[in-house]
Amino acid sequence: MTDARPDSNGAGAARGPGRRPGPTETREKILAAARDLFAEKGYDGTSLRAIARTAGVDPALVHHFYGTKDGVFIEAIRFPVDPAALLGRAASFPKERFGELMVRTFLEVWGDDERRRPLLGMLRSAMTNEQAAALLREFVTSALFSRAGKATGAPQLPLQAAAGQMIGLMILRYVVRVEPIASASEDELVELVAPTIQRYLTSS
Amino acid sequence: MTDARPDSNGAGAARGPGRRPGPTETREKILAAARDLFAEKGYDGTSLRAIARTAGVDPALVHHFYGTKDGVFIEAIRFPVDPAALLGRAASFPKERFGELMVRTFLEVWGDDERRRPLLGMLRSAMTNEQAAALLREFVTSALFSRAGKATGAPQLPLQAAAGQMIGLMILRYVVRVEPIASASEDELVELVAPTIQRYLTSS
Repeated sequence: MTDARPDSNGAGAARGPGRRPGPTETREKILAAARDLFAEKGYDGTSLRAIARTAGVDPALVHHFYGTKDGVFIEAIRFPVDPAALLGRAASFPKERFGELMVRTFLEVWGDDERRRPLLGMLRSAMTNEQAAALLREFVTSALFSRAGKATGAPQLPLQAAAGQMIGLMILRYVVRVEPIASASEDELVELVAPTIQRYLTSS
Repeated sequence: MTDARPDSNGAGAARGPGRRPGPTETREKILAAARDLFAEKGYDGTSLRAIARTAGVDPALVHHFYGTKDGVFIEAIRFPVDPAALLGRAASFPKERFGELMVRTFLEVWGDDERRRPLLGMLRSAMTNEQAAALLREFVTSALFSRAGKATGAPQLPLQAAAGQMIGLMILRYVVRVEPIASASEDELVELVAPTIQRYLTSS
């Protein structure tokens, strides 16, 4: 992706003299700064302004490239779903099919090797490392669960039970790969699990 | 635990001369052989007889100490639940409370640091390593799911959906530790999730 906006960051030494850093390099610099800050200070402790300062760029540029803090986070850790886009998609779905939408979305994301990898990386890190667990916790709380609560009207506890259902199912299907869940078709899984999700999202 | 049976294994050099290896050492030797074989050949590819041979002991002794192959496996990897004992417990439970029993059992095991650790270790390994994933897959297929199917009469697909619900819930509660699921009481979680499990186990 190219961007016509002038690059506010003057340092381009790594690419040799006579060449101004392009938007790609500036983006990489911002993401590197973001990764450092998120790892060091956690999700809640990191601001868009601090990311810009660490990257040596104008905050307006970070905002221009990534929108909000969770936009930067999603790119920095290669989180394979944009929660804002997903919830936008949910808004155009009839409420009585939220369960199905959730099952199909998880299958789409986890069924793709490239998109599954960063999710497994985050989970694995959270299993060994309290700092990684805290980062994941803060991100899912702010960027996923609180938004999903607003979008669906469901309380947090059943919402998290629904997420738990999907996460565990994905682990059995794509990590442990136990049969018959590993080979079940998307439609079989929708039929099996969507009613559970639907009840969690709409029963209270 | 002491055992009066004479030790059929004559090698005790590691503990110095003049001392015959006790049952504890023999057990350790069997478990070490089992760990090697399970890692190398998988769960299905390892027999009780091969474990005995590798440990240099009589197969009858392995059987005497651990009963069956899954008894050895459970001890070797410190799997924190004995499926046979658990299913025995289920047999004395009214069928309409299987959902509750399953939720309470998962909370009891995962709520205990010492018992949670080997489960997380297995999951983490399965996330990075195909050999570890295969071992876990074969074990849960033979020792957990097929037995649970017989005990409950539930088909494998809903049984695995139920297991997925519990595994994902445990990850959100004890690994990611997201609120409110991390602080919810056992009774709240039973109320929230047991009906889901119950439906999976009994609806078909």
